[in-house]
Amino acid sequence: MTDAETTPETTVGELSEGQVLRGILDRLPPSTAPVGPGDDAAVLSVPDGRVVATTDTLVHGPDFRLAWSSPFELGFKAAAVNLADVAAMGARPVALLVALAMPDATPVSFVQGLADGLAAACDELAPGCAVEGGDLTVSDTLTIAVTALGSLEGRDPVRRSGARVGDGVYVIGELGEAARGLEVLFRRFTDADGAPVALTPQARAALDPLDARAVSRQLAPRPPLATALAAAASGATAMMDVSDGLVLDATRLADASDVTIEIDSATLGDEPARALDGGEDHGFLVVFPPDAEPHGRRIGTVVARGDDAVRVDGRAWEGPGGWDPYRDWDAGRG
Amino acid sequence: MTDAETTPETTVGELSEGQVLRGILDRLPPSTAPVGPGDDAAVLSVPDGRVVATTDTLVHGPDFRLAWSSPFELGFKAAAVNLADVAAMGARPVALLVALAMPDATPVSFVQGLADGLAAACDELAPGCAVEGGDLTVSDTLTIAVTALGSLEGRDPVRRSGARVGDGVYVIGELGEAARGLEVLFRRFTDADGAPVALTPQARAALDPLDARAVSRQLAPRPPLATALAAAASGATAMMDVSDGLVLDATRLADASDVTIEIDSATLGDEPARALDGGEDHGFLVVFPPDAEPHGRRIGTVVARGDDAVRVDGRAWEGPGGWDPYRDWDAGRG
Repeated sequence: MTDAETTPETTVGELSEGQVLRGILDRLPPSTAPVGPGDDAAVLSVPDGRVVATTDTLVHGPDFRLAWSSPFELGFKAAAVNLADVAAMGARPVALLVALAMPDATPVSFVQGLADGLAAACDELAPGCAVEGGDLTVSDTLTIAVTALGSLEGRDPVRRSGARVGDGVYVIGELGEAARGLEVLFRRFTDADGAPVALTPQARAALDPLDARAVSRQLAPRPPLATALAAAASGATAMMDVSDGLVLDATRLADASDVTIEIDSATLGDEPARALDGGEDHGFLVVFPPDAEPHGRRIGTVVARGDDAVRVDGRAWEGPGGWDPYRDWDAGRG
Repeated sequence: MTDAETTPETTVGELSEGQVLRGILDRLPPSTAPVGPGDDAAVLSVPDGRVVATTDTLVHGPDFRLAWSSPFELGFKAAAVNLADVAAMGARPVALLVALAMPDATPVSFVQGLADGLAAACDELAPGCAVEGGDLTVSDTLTIAVTALGSLEGRDPVRRSGARVGDGVYVIGELGEAARGLEVLFRRFTDADGAPVALTPQARAALDPLDARAVSRQLAPRPPLATALAAAASGATAMMDVSDGLVLDATRLADASDVTIEIDSATLGDEPARALDGGEDHGFLVVFPPDAEPHGRRIGTVVARGDDAVRVDGRAWEGPGGWDPYRDWDAGRG
C-alpha cells in the first residue's frame, strides 16, 4: 500500500513499519536534539553532565480502557506521567522515547491521535521537550512504554530521602480528582456485567461539570510541572510524584527519609478519604524546610520517626492508602 | 504473602509490586549512578554533556516464543539489542531502564532468570552498565521494553549519514547465524500445526554443534560492542546495528548518506543469501575512509548514488533483504 492510498481506517497491519512511523513523526514537534529520530539512537544535550531518566508503561487493561480513553488522551497521559517523574527530581524534561506495541488491527487514525496527544503534553507541560526516539512493534496487547529524560540545569536532584524533622509537607496539584473520575467511569459507563461502555462525546457533554472535569483528569492528567521545578529551585528538601495514592506515596517518602509524616485531614478538602487513597493525579508531594519559600498548599509536618510512616490526624490511616497494580487489577479490559 | 513464604513457583500475581521488584533488584549488578533505582527517576553521569538514548521492545509472539527462549536468554537479548544500538552510535552504555509487563501467572523464577540475563548481558557486553530504573505492570502479553543510555566520552556520534564515496564497507560480528538458528527452531521444534514445541536442555544438547550455536545466537545474540567502540575511535564515518537484515539495513545507511553500497557476495561466507537476508545478529555495519585503520571484515565499497541503494555483485538484490515486524509476523505465539 502506498502512503497516498492510506485512509484513517487503514490498519497498521496493512502498512510497513516505515509508513506507520512517518504517520507518527509528521505529527510530533520537530526534534530539538543534536541527533533526533532516524538513527540507531538519539543524542541529547544535558549541559551539566547529568541526565535524569525514568520509564513508565500504560497497558491496555490494567491502565486504560479503549471504551473510555480517546487516543489523544492516551498519548497525553503516557507522556504526562513520565514528564511528572522527571520534574519530581527537579529536572526539566528534554526528551521522550516512545515504544509502541499495537495489534495489527489498530487503525492509523488511532496512532495519529496518540501522536497528537504526545505532542500536546510536551507543548503544554514541558515546552522544548520532543519525542526523540522510539520503537514500533506488533502485540496482542496495546502497550505504550515511554521513557522521559531530563536536565538538572546545575541543580541538585530532589530525592525522596531529604525530608528532615520540622520541615513542612506540601502538595502541588490536585488530590483525588483522578480517583473521582475513575469512580464516575465505573459507576456510569459500565454495563450490568461490569464491562465498560463507550464514553461518547455526547455522554461526556451530558455529565455534571465537576464529574466531567474529574473524568478528564483521570484520562489525561495535567501535572503542574512548572510549579514542581519552581519548588526544586526554592529549596525543597524532598519531592515525589503522587501517582499511587497520597498515603502510599507519603509512606515511601517517609521511609526513604526515615521520618514520620503527619497529615492534617482538614487540609484535604471536602473528601479527605478520596484525597488520601486516590491515585493517578500526578501532583507532587514536596517538603520544604521552615526557612524556605514554599510552593503548593501545606498538608502536614515532618516529625521524628515513630511506629507509623504516615499518620493522619495523629493516627495510622485505616484506608487502602493507594493502588498496587499487582493486587488491584480486576483483569477487565474493554 | 511474606518474602519468606515465596518459592520459585510463586506467581507475580500473588505478590506486591515491591516484592516482585526486590526479587529483581537483588540479582542485578549494583548501581553505579549518582541516583539509582528507588526514586522517581534515576540520575546518570554523562560527563561530556551528551547522552545517547534508544529503546527497543521484545513482545511475546512476534519477538520470542516461551517454548524456545529461557528467561535468562530473554533478559540477555532484551539488554543486548539495546546495548548494540548505543554502541552503534560510538557510545559506551552506562545504564538500562527496564519496563516489564507480565501476566499475573508469571512465576517468580521466570522474573529471576530474566534479571540474571539482564545482569549477564551488562557484565559481558558493557561492563559498568547497570539497570538503573524500570517499571513493573501486569499485562496479558509478556512485554520487555528496554531503554539504553550511553556516554560519547567526548567523541562525535557515528551516524548513518556519514558514508562517503570511496569508503570501505565492513561488518563487525556475525551475519546469518541468528537467522540460521531461527530456521533450526522452526524446522525442528514445531509440531505438525506449526506450533512451537519445547526446546529442552536435552534436545539442545542433541543438536549438531553448529546448529546449537546458531540457535544460541538467535536466542541470545552477543554483539561485539568493544570492537564497535574501537571502530568509532579509529575514524569510522558511518555505523549501524545490523538488526533487520544486511540488505535492508545497508539500504537505510545508503539512503541516509545518499550513496550506493556495493556488496561483494564472495565475502559473505558459504551462505551469502542468508547473510544478506537474515536479521537479528546485531553485528555492526561500519564504513571507514581509505586512510583509517579498519575493524571487522570488508564486504564492499561505497560508490556514487545510483538507482539502487544497495547492489550485490553489481545488481539489485532480489531476496527479501530483511524482516519487517508489521509485515512478517505470523501471529503465532507459544
